[in-house]
Amino acid sequence: MKNVAILGSTGSIGRQTMEVIAHYPDRFRVVALAAGRQVDQLVAQARQFQPRLVSVATRELAEEVRLRLPSHIRVCYGEEGLLEVATHPECHFLLSGILGSIGLKPTLAAIQAGIPIGLANKETLVSAGHLVMREAKKRGVPILPVDSEHSAIFQALQGQSREGVRQLILTASGGSLRHLTRQELRTVTIREVLQHPNWSMGAKITVDSATMMNKGLEVIEAHWLFGVPFDKIKVLIHPESVIHSMVEFVDGAILAQLGLPDMRTPIQYALSYPERLPHIQAEYLSLDHLRALHLEKVDEARYPALSIAYRAGRAGGLYPTVMNAANEEAVHAFLEGRLPFDRIEQVVEHVLNRCQGGKDPSLEEVLEADSWARRAAREQITTLTH
Amino acid sequence: MKNVAILGSTGSIGRQTMEVIAHYPDRFRVVALAAGRQVDQLVAQARQFQPRLVSVATRELAEEVRLRLPSHIRVCYGEEGLLEVATHPECHFLLSGILGSIGLKPTLAAIQAGIPIGLANKETLVSAGHLVMREAKKRGVPILPVDSEHSAIFQALQGQSREGVRQLILTASGGSLRHLTRQELRTVTIREVLQHPNWSMGAKITVDSATMMNKGLEVIEAHWLFGVPFDKIKVLIHPESVIHSMVEFVDGAILAQLGLPDMRTPIQYALSYPERLPHIQAEYLSLDHLRALHLEKVDEARYPALSIAYRAGRAGGLYPTVMNAANEEAVHAFLEGRLPFDRIEQVVEHVLNRCQGGKDPSLEEVLEADSWARRAAREQITTLTH
Repeated sequence: MKNVAILGSTGSIGRQTMEVIAHYPDRFRVVALAAGRQVDQLVAQARQFQPRLVSVATRELAEEVRLRLPSHIRVCYGEEGLLEVATHPECHFLLSGILGSIGLKPTLAAIQAGIPIGLANKETLVSAGHLVMREAKKRGVPILPVDSEHSAIFQALQGQSREGVRQLILTASGGSLRHLTRQELRTVTIREVLQHPNWSMGAKITVDSATMMNKGLEVIEAHWLFGVPFDKIKVLIHPESVIHSMVEFVDGAILAQLGLPDMRTPIQYALSYPERLPHIQAEYLSLDHLRALHLEKVDEARYPALSIAYRAGRAGGLYPTVMNAANEEAVHAFLEGRLPFDRIEQVVEHVLNRCQGGKDPSLEEVLEADSWARRAAREQITTLTH
Repeated sequence: MKNVAILGSTGSIGRQTMEVIAHYPDRFRVVALAAGRQVDQLVAQARQFQPRLVSVATRELAEEVRLRLPSHIRVCYGEEGLLEVATHPECHFLLSGILGSIGLKPTLAAIQAGIPIGLANKETLVSAGHLVMREAKKRGVPILPVDSEHSAIFQALQGQSREGVRQLILTASGGSLRHLTRQELRTVTIREVLQHPNWSMGAKITVDSATMMNKGLEVIEAHWLFGVPFDKIKVLIHPESVIHSMVEFVDGAILAQLGLPDMRTPIQYALSYPERLPHIQAEYLSLDHLRALHLEKVDEARYPALSIAYRAGRAGGLYPTVMNAANEEAVHAFLEGRLPFDRIEQVVEHVLNRCQGGKDPSLEEVLEADSWARRAAREQITTLTH
């Protein structure tokens, strides 16, 4: 029996994780859940899964939840609550599916407590990859990727020596606006951006997919997760989203992972690793009814966010943190109708150009840079749009 | 330093193996070579690689070779010679690249001597899979596939538990006559058959590729090599020959191996396993200039050889041996202009229908059935064409 704690239980990854756990009650048990403000859903989850501990965003929400749950389920809140969930003494596995830099501290704390991590939170590796991987190596804690691209690479690397790797190839759908020129991007609406052709995801990540900033973040994550330098990480456009990513080896062999656009497969693999469990709804890719598969080069002028991310990744230090924070603010402004879509990259680049760098930053420095970049981005958005 | 013996050193696989060995003289050394009648080439190989032992088909050829080689290279011949090469006391690895059932005994002898095998000889597993795998398991001797499909599957299975496998998917180009109907096959010439679109191979295997009997043989090999039942082995047509084969897992993930149509990649992987070495000519698949990739169902009426092979494989016993032997005779007759292309499967089916079966046959019974099937096929070819 594997006891699982979940950060971000009411989000898309959290909910799908609990679907898997509910399907395999003899293998997995939920011990602790952390959510934000979606109290109704958290209460329903806690009633169904009977964890030892739940956590919500604020003290007020915690008090509300306490009244609605049986007394043997402890309720905590805030940053302290996230830490308690992540390091619960009975926890064997932490699924970090929370959004944003708020996931950083609890994930690091779990690693320090020796708890294996299923990682869906991008900021953990983008901002603190150097801290996380150092700590994980020191303690021999496995970090298992929970997104389709890194899980694909992780699967392709099983039983292979790292010296044999020639390059990692991340595939990108090209996003919802793939057929538009840079010129045409000027006038796209939020609605157009949010219609992703293959994956149904949250609004933020769908926008990131359209700018390809999400792929840039994934390049940085792949760098840390697999210890591969940036010039050995390549991105190709693959409009069908059937090949989730690939590894090319020095002998010319390429191992690719294919499948449906279904997050439950990487979630399951992280939970059951190194074993595999049957898909909970027996849904499989129908290979003999597949459309033709295409792979194409990325046009860097069309997708400047990708080059920005490579530059930030190579520069290291605080640059990836700053890039990510500025991007979050810019995307947020776009989704609120305060910034045109084609200005997102400009905001990010502007803030990055003002970044001081920093070498091997501490967690505090990372969080400070994150706040600074958000402020700087907000200022720049105001300047640009007034 | 890994000492390598090669059965079939002057054949396509043998020559490419020696290319790899010549490129990595600090890792591999040739200790013994067996060829058939291509004496000039064998002598050149022996002069270059300075093995301890060489073997040729007959005593006469051995005498000729002896005169042309320095005396420290021992020369032997015939069946005994093959056995000596395969079980040379200094040998750490046997590359069995010889064609036909002649490769069976020496490969089994090497396994009994505890020597790891790189297997390119189809008959070894098609005819004696039950004997070979039993022996290999008993002695813990690894059998490493040296053809693109099985190497692809072997690579995709690394680090994966066998319980997690949902099905193996062998890809087939569809061969040189893919676009012709069954009707149109009646009049095809040898020349047309031998123009394979993707791979350059020997005549026999190119014909087998056009009938898809080669894929049938590979299905039987995969059954033995990976211990997977026939209903979990599927064939799909993939005209581009970029995806060499795939494994689908129970959780919905598929791992596919892709690459150039270059036998040196699987040869190298068998030699260097579990490590990988750089491709000796640094030739890599150019992913961003790839044509679209297609996967299609096999039309069983168009390719009856595939169903024949599944039936023979499922029946087991002597059926696969008899099928393979009858097919070899039929292809031989076609290549000599004595049998129309579209009659090949008919000859095989006729001989199979006369086969007695046999359960868990011994090596002697296998070899006897092989001879019987060849005679029966020749008779049937005469009947059909007179």
